[in-house]
Amino acid sequence: MTEFELIARFFTRPSRERQGVGDDCALIDVGGRTLAMTCDMLIERRHFFADVDPESLGHKALAVNLSDLAAAGATPRCFLLALALPRADERWLEAFAAGMFGLAEQFGCELIGGDTTRSPEWNQTSGPLTICITALGDVVPGPALSRAGARPGDDLWVSGTLGDAALALAFAAGAAAETDDRDACMARLERPTPRVRLGEQLRGLATAAIDVSDGLLGDLTHIGERSQVGARLRWADVPLSPALRRQSAALQQRCALAGGDDYELLFSAPPEKRPQVLAAGQLAGINVTRIGEIVAGRSIVVLDAGGGNMETPFSGFDHFKA
Amino acid sequence: MTEFELIARFFTRPSRERQGVGDDCALIDVGGRTLAMTCDMLIERRHFFADVDPESLGHKALAVNLSDLAAAGATPRCFLLALALPRADERWLEAFAAGMFGLAEQFGCELIGGDTTRSPEWNQTSGPLTICITALGDVVPGPALSRAGARPGDDLWVSGTLGDAALALAFAAGAAAETDDRDACMARLERPTPRVRLGEQLRGLATAAIDVSDGLLGDLTHIGERSQVGARLRWADVPLSPALRRQSAALQQRCALAGGDDYELLFSAPPEKRPQVLAAGQLAGINVTRIGEIVAGRSIVVLDAGGGNMETPFSGFDHFKA
Repeated sequence: MTEFELIARFFTRPSRERQGVGDDCALIDVGGRTLAMTCDMLIERRHFFADVDPESLGHKALAVNLSDLAAAGATPRCFLLALALPRADERWLEAFAAGMFGLAEQFGCELIGGDTTRSPEWNQTSGPLTICITALGDVVPGPALSRAGARPGDDLWVSGTLGDAALALAFAAGAAAETDDRDACMARLERPTPRVRLGEQLRGLATAAIDVSDGLLGDLTHIGERSQVGARLRWADVPLSPALRRQSAALQQRCALAGGDDYELLFSAPPEKRPQVLAAGQLAGINVTRIGEIVAGRSIVVLDAGGGNMETPFSGFDHFKA
Repeated sequence: MTEFELIARFFTRPSRERQGVGDDCALIDVGGRTLAMTCDMLIERRHFFADVDPESLGHKALAVNLSDLAAAGATPRCFLLALALPRADERWLEAFAAGMFGLAEQFGCELIGGDTTRSPEWNQTSGPLTICITALGDVVPGPALSRAGARPGDDLWVSGTLGDAALALAFAAGAAAETDDRDACMARLERPTPRVRLGEQLRGLATAAIDVSDGLLGDLTHIGERSQVGARLRWADVPLSPALRRQSAALQQRCALAGGDDYELLFSAPPEKRPQVLAAGQLAGINVTRIGEIVAGRSIVVLDAGGGNMETPFSGFDHFKA
């Protein structure tokens, strides 16, 4: 059973709200306004290394939630923090709080509540540090962005560059050629920038959006599933950092197509909106790149430089493939 | 450093919202309406036994959040579920979902999102099952209830009976006299009833409210702290179940004064509102009992049957005591 099958089978029920389970954010209407909300749990050894810098961890724990708000085009407003700590280490807490509030203040997003507890004893040691943040954002003016709404003929766009977070993990695992890029990639993994300003600009412009947290092909599959469409991706157009370009072709593909944790926005928009999309990127201060288009059907195809079907070992991410 | 000191020092910042860190719920105003929200994390071996019945666990994980909404006088609306599972056990998931949705449907509270992940490996075994629910409620008509607002001269009230959940733990630890009450007490511990309907009735009536999760004296201390008042409690008036009355006087006091997890509502109201408070209890289908009064100053005193100061080993919960 995959994560998505499990959610579909046990935790998906019809809802009166504007948007329930199955997107980056839930949406509820309150007094004529729309609120977006999202929740992510990060657990030691599953989502981060035990020795991760606590300031980076505080940043990232909030950033992954703000990235979900960005994918809904929501403006961050406030958040709740649930924290299970193995111990009350003041220096650690100070650094964690500094990283978290540093990012929060950048987006005017306030901590308004939560829960603090102690990790349980677990086989003679402390159980994992666990962080669960719930973030809320305002969608004004609407409508919110969602994974549904992509239409055949739409352009497919992505912000920034893809694959650097996965390259950081490859460096850590000794699976990448040693270059001077290690620290820069680690910064992208540990301190991602949620594309909040871009998400706000894309409201009313993008037809569908998602943040790239499961990998480009995986997240494109989520858009395909919710929008009932397929996609054609041009590998040569996928934006790669100079750091990733210095690696082997195989690693470039693995990191950029299947690597998660980049927290860029992947979105679709009608071709006639190209000037507005480019302007949105400029206003938000981040490059946006056209990497393909939405097509009818349910196949997700990656084209090589010659326009042929590129075989990638990562197509397994697409369980709709014909 | 206690939990409360840690929160005060690292995680309390001024906020523009109606109510931030420090109460049962945060409150935000949206389009002329007020939303209450709360978040609780439950971790295996910290908050529940590893072999707990999954249906009861699903019930309780949501109930503790609905109890926080009740303490704010909010009507449950929707919730997010973050879940870290050691394994995808279908029978376990089915039972957990049945318990959770059973309670959710009772209050028209819908699951609209969340996060599902796998517990990390932890010393050759799976890490703890972890559940973090964020619940939202509507406060209409307002105002919401909070811990602040109790005034000297107010009556102090509590719903239901206190100490049964703690007695269940005493049974489990072999620290209670064996009686036939074990299962009934275990049901109160494992499947608490959030006093949602009472909370709704108390809006505009109670001057302060909190749910009893840290123990009567601990939670009364929270009201005292936020309302800047003290309290006088008459031990003889504290409502005890027949089950607890069959135990020793010492165990009665420990369970009812210091035992957590009862999820009854503790609240204050002006003496002239006694008929309305009793009517609110009747409408909500739960007994409410006057157990003392709010006083000026910051002392929390427990009076014995003769009106003298009762010495209890649990007064340590009150760090304001003169």
